[in-house]
This record gives sequence, structure tokens and C-alpha cells, in this order.
Amino acid sequence: MTETTSDAASDPRYRVAVIGGTGPQGKGLGYRFARGGHSVVLGSRAAEKAEAVAEEVRERLAGAPGAGEVSGASNPHAVEQCDVVLLAVPYDGHDELVASLPLAGKTVISCVNPLAFDKRGAHGRIINNGAGSAAESAQELAPEATVVGAFHNVSAVGLWDDIEFLDEDVIVVGDVVEAKGIAMNLAASVTGRVGIDGGKLRLARQLEPFTAVLISINRKYKVHSGLRITGLGEPH
Amino acid sequence: MTETTSDAASDPRYRVAVIGGTGPQGKGLGYRFARGGHSVVLGSRAAEKAEAVAEEVRERLAGAPGAGEVSGASNPHAVEQCDVVLLAVPYDGHDELVASLPLAGKTVISCVNPLAFDKRGAHGRIINNGAGSAAESAQELAPEATVVGAFHNVSAVGLWDDIEFLDEDVIVVGDVVEAKGIAMNLAASVTGRVGIDGGKLRLARQLEPFTAVLISINRKYKVHSGLRITGLGEPH
Repeated sequence: MTETTSDAASDPRYRVAVIGGTGPQGKGLGYRFARGGHSVVLGSRAAEKAEAVAEEVRERLAGAPGAGEVSGASNPHAVEQCDVVLLAVPYDGHDELVASLPLAGKTVISCVNPLAFDKRGAHGRIINNGAGSAAESAQELAPEATVVGAFHNVSAVGLWDDIEFLDEDVIVVGDVVEAKGIAMNLAASVTGRVGIDGGKLRLARQLEPFTAVLISINRKYKVHSGLRITGLGEPH
Repeated sequence: MTETTSDAASDPRYRVAVIGGTGPQGKGLGYRFARGGHSVVLGSRAAEKAEAVAEEVRERLAGAPGAGEVSGASNPHAVEQCDVVLLAVPYDGHDELVASLPLAGKTVISCVNPLAFDKRGAHGRIINNGAGSAAESAQELAPEATVVGAFHNVSAVGLWDDIEFLDEDVIVVGDVVEAKGIAMNLAASVTGRVGIDGGKLRLARQLEPFTAVLISINRKYKVHSGLRITGLGEPH
């Protein structure tokens, strides 16, 4: 599960629990992961709601060659079925939810964006007096899990769109190389190329609130903007 | 001075004081601005050092059609000669320097990155318990100036390189549209297209430490990475 390659066709296949799988980001990422051949268990507070959204994703996938299975479950049951867990939940209630899940031994990918909005627009919420992030909080709350940060900046609209791949990069941060490799491989389902190793987990402090900049750009220019890293050559 | 256009050839021309103009970022941006037709006064603590680097930049520009004038001066004298001031200084000593300069009435562009480095790599320094940035500090210290943030993420190596334009975007944040427009126009000298309006000045909290992510990527991949915003179409 830890090998990395830039060839999406030969990437390893994972079984991913998507916590918050009925929200636009979770549903969209689950759809992309399944389209890339990974199995996905969408999690929600109510299993029936998760199953309904899973059915919606399966319909969206119909005919996609090599797509993985998609099912729905309650959040804890989704975690139990998978080695890889994507946290795609709002920041409000995030800490309580993470603490309640059986995450020990799992690779946990956080795409949680702690943002606030006021009349001046979107901005980053301040966590631990500037010395924290949602991903670091998750790691503290689930010390026996391995947490990485990734997929913060991908547009939910783009994820659910018809385009083959999103024209953006997924930057992955974390303190364990193997866990980062899993998120980097999963990124190939979304962007068509493996994600970029962006450094240590604490740099999630930078990735999470950068979404506020993209939201500001979206509002100003009426677009769905994304982030690309230049200078890496192809393939990186 | 406030019109915006995506056509670099018809952009307005500015006279820009570069504070910290003998450092790699300041020298590189000054070179690019002058190559784009703007006049540049490189500032330094010692006027003689500034003049020596200005001579170096003039030699580098020799033969470049339409290049602006480049001279050197002490930091305060550089400011006095210009309506636009670029702060390209290290964060250490930043506040004292900004408070000492005659910035009232000027458009001040901050590309200052408050970073720290330890054995885990680069990371953002925490300013005002997470509710601050170098650009916001400059605005507080020079309340009669108009401060914007821009050019945080451009590579000094790329700036001084032979390539025509850097394959990156310049994101500009600020609370005054006209001042942002000046930085956006100047960006065309660096990237070949106007900068992107990234929202309010407080989002400098996100742009400044994002440089730590790019530094991490550079170290990991042995590259000079940059940032592009996708989804805007061309020209934006």
C-alpha cells in the first residue's frame, strides 16, 4: 500500500472511508476515488443517508470502467471497514467527531478547512493561537492514527463535474512518509497525477486557510479556482 | 496609475523604491520591474552598496528594449523619490525599519515572509497569536500609507534567471482596490500577466507562510517551485 508511482493505471487500490461523505466535498472526493478504482465507504451520522448518497454516486459512476465499489454506512462503521479514512467534515464539531471514531491504526487524511466568514469575506480561523490546524488537532485526538493533510483546496464543484481530471495539484503534508504516499496516490484519481509532498504536518496550518484565498478569488472573478505548483516538470 | 489591463505593453509605468534592494528578492524584483519599463530605485542601509547593486542590475539589463532606469540610494532617500515602495526585507528588524521610513501617502507593497527554520524545515512564524502578518504590521506602523501584500512566493533564482517570464502567478491582497491594481500591474513584469486579486489584506496571513510549503517542496524535489492559480482562463 505504500509504493508510489506517477502512473495512475498501476497505482495501488485502497479502501477509503469518507467521513462526512454526504457533504459536497466528501461526496465529490468519494466519487473521484471510486472512479479511480478505489473502494469507498461513504460515512454519515445516519447510515440511511449515507446509503442514499452512495446510490447517487453509483449512478454517477455507471459505465465508468474499472470503478471501485461504493457503499454507505454510519461514520464509525465506515471507519471499521477501511484502513484509510478521509475526514471531510465541517470544522464545527470536528474535534468531538474525531475523538469519537475508532481511528487507531488507520491512515487518516484530513481535508478539513477551518474557515470563518464575515462581511470582509473568508479567512482562516485561528487554532491554538496560530500554532495549530485541524489536521494537527486530529492527530492529537487520535494519537494511534497517522494523520496527513491533503485535498484542502479542490473545488467541490469540479469534483462532481464531468471533466476527466481537475487542473490543480494536491499538496500532501504529514510526518510519516508512507501515509503521505497513500494520499499522494489517491490524488491521482482527482488530478491525473500523484500529489505533491509538501512537507511536515504542521504545514497544514498553511494549506487549510489558503482555501480562503481561493474563495476570495472565486468571488472576485466568478470562477472555480485551483492551485497548481509549477517548476516540478512532468511527471513529478 | 490605477487602470488595469492584461496587456503588459500598455501598462502604466511606475517609479518603485525597493527597500532591501540589495537582497536576492529585492534585486530580482527590481530587475524584473525595470525590464518591464518601470523606474527602480534600489534602497539599502548604505547608499554606496545600493548604487553598486544598481550598477549590477543596469549591466544585466543592457540591451533590454524599453527598460526603465535603475539607481541606488539609502532606504529613506529611495522612498522619497517614489510613490510606490516595495518592502523586500527580512522579517527580523522589519518593524523597526518600516517605522523609520517616510511612507505616508505611499503605496507600499510587502513581499515579506515571516518564516522560521528548524530541523523539521521551514514554517510560518506566528504573528499576533495568529491574527497578524508582516503586511498588516506594516500597515499599523505606517497608517498613512496604503499597504498591499504581493510577490511573496516568487523565487529569487527565477527572478534573476534568463527566462522571459516566471511560470507562476502573483496574488495580491489589500483593502484598497487602487493600490492592489498597482501591484497587479507590476506583476506583469514578472509573470507576463497581471496579478490576481486575492482579497483583503488580512489574507496576507495565508500568502506569507505559504512560502514555507514551497520551500519544503523545493528541498524535497530539488526544484524551484512556484504557485499558479488555475480556472481563471486567459487572460484573467
